Amino acid sequence: MSPNQAARGVRARARQSVRAEVATVVQDLALERGYTETTVDDICAAAEISRSTFFRYFSTKEEAFFGTTADAGEHLRDALTARPPDEAPWTAMRRALDLLIEQYEGHDERTRRLTRLIMNTPSLAAWHREKNARWHELLRPEIARRLGADPADESDPRANAVIAAALGCVEATLTAWTATAQPRALSEILDLAMAAPRGEGER
Amino acid sequence: MSPNQAARGVRARARQSVRAEVATVVQDLALERGYTETTVDDICAAAEISRSTFFRYFSTKEEAFFGTTADAGEHLRDALTARPPDEAPWTAMRRALDLLIEQYEGHDERTRRLTRLIMNTPSLAAWHREKNARWHELLRPEIARRLGADPADESDPRANAVIAAALGCVEATLTAWTATAQPRALSEILDLAMAAPRGEGER
Repeated sequence: MSPNQAARGVRARARQSVRAEVATVVQDLALERGYTETTVDDICAAAEISRSTFFRYFSTKEEAFFGTTADAGEHLRDALTARPPDEAPWTAMRRALDLLIEQYEGHDERTRRLTRLIMNTPSLAAWHREKNARWHELLRPEIARRLGADPADESDPRANAVIAAALGCVEATLTAWTATAQPRALSEILDLAMAAPRGEGER
Repeated sequence: MSPNQAARGVRARARQSVRAEVATVVQDLALERGYTETTVDDICAAAEISRSTFFRYFSTKEEAFFGTTADAGEHLRDALTARPPDEAPWTAMRRALDLLIEQYEGHDERTRRLTRLIMNTPSLAAWHREKNARWHELLRPEIARRLGADPADESDPRANAVIAAALGCVEATLTAWTATAQPRALSEILDLAMAAPRGEGER
């Protein structure tokens, strides 16, 4: 590694760590007083940074809120690819999602409150859905392969349908998880959600 | 009907007709030069209205673009409720969606080009997804009933999962429909899409 490359690595890590710190500040303020009620000025005051520093790291308040959680899509793709090659697409998706679930469950009540905040704040929910939309590109080749479909054939809706349906089930799962009285574990809720479109467990 | 009520009805219809006219102007301009490239000033010039008139009818450019297509959610709910009461939720959703499909297919190549524009323009795609999110509230009671679930029980993810998965399949269908070489009819694409999460028609 050249000194130049090493310096770039240090700068990239420093940038990541500032982003993570500011994201925690935004999340704390939003939990305390509501997301809409939290202004960029409030965030800058609490994080002890200037507005111009804020906008060097983030283009929007939404981006700052999600600063640390942006790349689960790639982990999900890797988990999906690591599943047995002839496992059916829906089952492989469910198992790959275990990884996402562990991320959520490994955290405490704070994650649950943040998730509820996201689901109940239109601009955050929109960002969350936008992120899901980007995951389509990442997951499509592997789902298409498992379907025996050509990933380059845009006229075949099946791979996108499997991905959109599964991510829709994840959204339903997170909404149910943050309900006030939820007796089930997250993985159990996702099992229920992903069985529903298949008509499994109906009366 | 009192004269007051009649006047309100006339005003509401006049408002609807202006909204529809402006929406057509926005759509035409966006098809011609791209959505992002179309400014509110361009729209006002082409529709021969002032900016203040524009903002009396719409709060955003996205709203103006979608001006005429805002209430399919209620039609969908009515179609769903009209299905045989003991039909399974996924089947009932598929059949209710026939209505939406007819709306799209009844139109010409213009609808297809508009749909492609929506899918490929992030801010329009986000609006479209936001609208789908609102449909959840409309469809939930009927889907929950068909699942034998309590619609008021927010800890049960199943009804939301069925709705989110089905609307995800619709999105995959519309994306595939607007692919350059699409040999299938819209209803056939939706059949393929909605079979995929259920593992029907796999190798």
